[in-house]
Amino acid sequence: MSLVVVGSVAYDGVETPHGKVDRMLGGAATYIGLAASYFAPVKIVAVVGDDFAAEDMDLLAGKGIDLEGLERVPGKTFFWEGKYSADMNDRETLRTDLNVFAGFQPKLPASYRSAPYLLLGNIQPALQRDVRSQMNGVHLAGGDTMNYWIRDHRQELLDTLRQWDFLLINDSEARMLSGEYNLRRAAAIVQQMGPRTLVVKRGEYGAILFAEGCHFIAPGYLLEDVFDPTGAGDCFAGGFIGYLAQQGVKPGDQGVDIEHLRRAVIYGSVMGSFCCEKFGVDRFRTLTRDEVEERYREFKACTDF
Amino acid sequence: MSLVVVGSVAYDGVETPHGKVDRMLGGAATYIGLAASYFAPVKIVAVVGDDFAAEDMDLLAGKGIDLEGLERVPGKTFFWEGKYSADMNDRETLRTDLNVFAGFQPKLPASYRSAPYLLLGNIQPALQRDVRSQMNGVHLAGGDTMNYWIRDHRQELLDTLRQWDFLLINDSEARMLSGEYNLRRAAAIVQQMGPRTLVVKRGEYGAILFAEGCHFIAPGYLLEDVFDPTGAGDCFAGGFIGYLAQQGVKPGDQGVDIEHLRRAVIYGSVMGSFCCEKFGVDRFRTLTRDEVEERYREFKACTDF
Repeated sequence: MSLVVVGSVAYDGVETPHGKVDRMLGGAATYIGLAASYFAPVKIVAVVGDDFAAEDMDLLAGKGIDLEGLERVPGKTFFWEGKYSADMNDRETLRTDLNVFAGFQPKLPASYRSAPYLLLGNIQPALQRDVRSQMNGVHLAGGDTMNYWIRDHRQELLDTLRQWDFLLINDSEARMLSGEYNLRRAAAIVQQMGPRTLVVKRGEYGAILFAEGCHFIAPGYLLEDVFDPTGAGDCFAGGFIGYLAQQGVKPGDQGVDIEHLRRAVIYGSVMGSFCCEKFGVDRFRTLTRDEVEERYREFKACTDF
Repeated sequence: MSLVVVGSVAYDGVETPHGKVDRMLGGAATYIGLAASYFAPVKIVAVVGDDFAAEDMDLLAGKGIDLEGLERVPGKTFFWEGKYSADMNDRETLRTDLNVFAGFQPKLPASYRSAPYLLLGNIQPALQRDVRSQMNGVHLAGGDTMNYWIRDHRQELLDTLRQWDFLLINDSEARMLSGEYNLRRAAAIVQQMGPRTLVVKRGEYGAILFAEGCHFIAPGYLLEDVFDPTGAGDCFAGGFIGYLAQQGVKPGDQGVDIEHLRRAVIYGSVMGSFCCEKFGVDRFRTLTRDEVEERYREFKACTDF
């Protein structure tokens, strides 16, 4: 079943201990869409400038991603530049040029509005809310946010979260949003804000799912080489919602089936792990669905007891 | 089958965000022994001063721990004082008085020498090696070490590790010992030093087992309240070796059975998690074997997919 993905499509400059790339395809919607495309038909809503390269359009289209909602306007595409620390657990933003993204007013094409799944990447909460209201008959809607919206646009964010089925954030964001350090208590507070399903991402340490009165702890996949962690969290989100869309999961009387959610978290980790293996989106140029399944099985073999 | 535990028995002063205790029973051998006592008969080798309290002897003896190797000499017991950061992920040592521990020359009673399991807590590598040589017919021997020995007594440590079946260290120690940041590559290097089984402890994030050409990733148990993390790593070690001793595990042609090792890691995590629930060793005053099994099952329920 099809999935609408809203967020940034951007160019990134990235430096990690393994190298430096001055300009490459990036953005939350790009990573989410690429990862989700292995599971379900994806429809992207985003804005790019007139500098957006045909080969980048081709990469997305080549994965079967619907680009009707990818608006192209005069000006430059959103540009972000960052540098990772030696252990790649921290990064410093060197430059953020919003460019055409500053005026982004997501408008869903008519053909998108009845899609049953919606993933809202990290953009202004009011815009996320507006997109949600443009959809009809969504089974599952949710997304991501960040410290800036939590701290400086709290009420706007709370109004948005009330309508979400799931929220995917990292541990420090969960703590900031709830005002509670302990993740079990933090999750209980966040779930009261709207999203009955909360996924707390912990980078290389995996993720924790809180849903339907219980929790599920998934360790991170242990990579032999991490070249570039950019986009790994978005790929996690893409794998998570992509799997749920593929399975046609929707909430029943007891909420969303917990077994599906658990497997969705593992597929999220799988997609996040692939993302780190090359710079930017490069791993998705060659990644096959068979490799995804193979890593899922490897994940099971490495965690079963 | 019985297990010899060698290390410090100490008094600790600990401050965490949840409170402060000026003086309480502590030390690696204490925590390891208490945790392991839930699985197998434990024999402790350590030294205390004449200030060591009868009630602390009683706590250990009450768990069936053999104290024939607990030497009592004139002077004061080893004292350590530390303060934890607000998130309890870091701690500062405020005071270390070695006292009688400075002259510790572990001597195994005759009744200890044929025990099939040996856990060497973090003490001087030359002493660990000396204890190993006092044992006859050990099935599995191994232990812990720390950054100080890795950095400043490297050759002595390498000579010691050569005779070990397993090593339990944290991630930063594994990186320092191997000179390699990536944990998969670090593990391969450490395994070449002697221990075919390596357990990398990652605190609240769980542990990774490397053995017999594969690895097993266990997430940390998600506690509702962490009162005091002191001793959690030692309790992990105690649960790990305790379970192996209970099962009578010994290496076959293919090394140690990997399924036993996986379960041993989970029992280690279980015992570490209980340790954090109260100050010092307090949780072990009331903890029952049934509670241990209950948490093992809960661990399985929270990680299965």
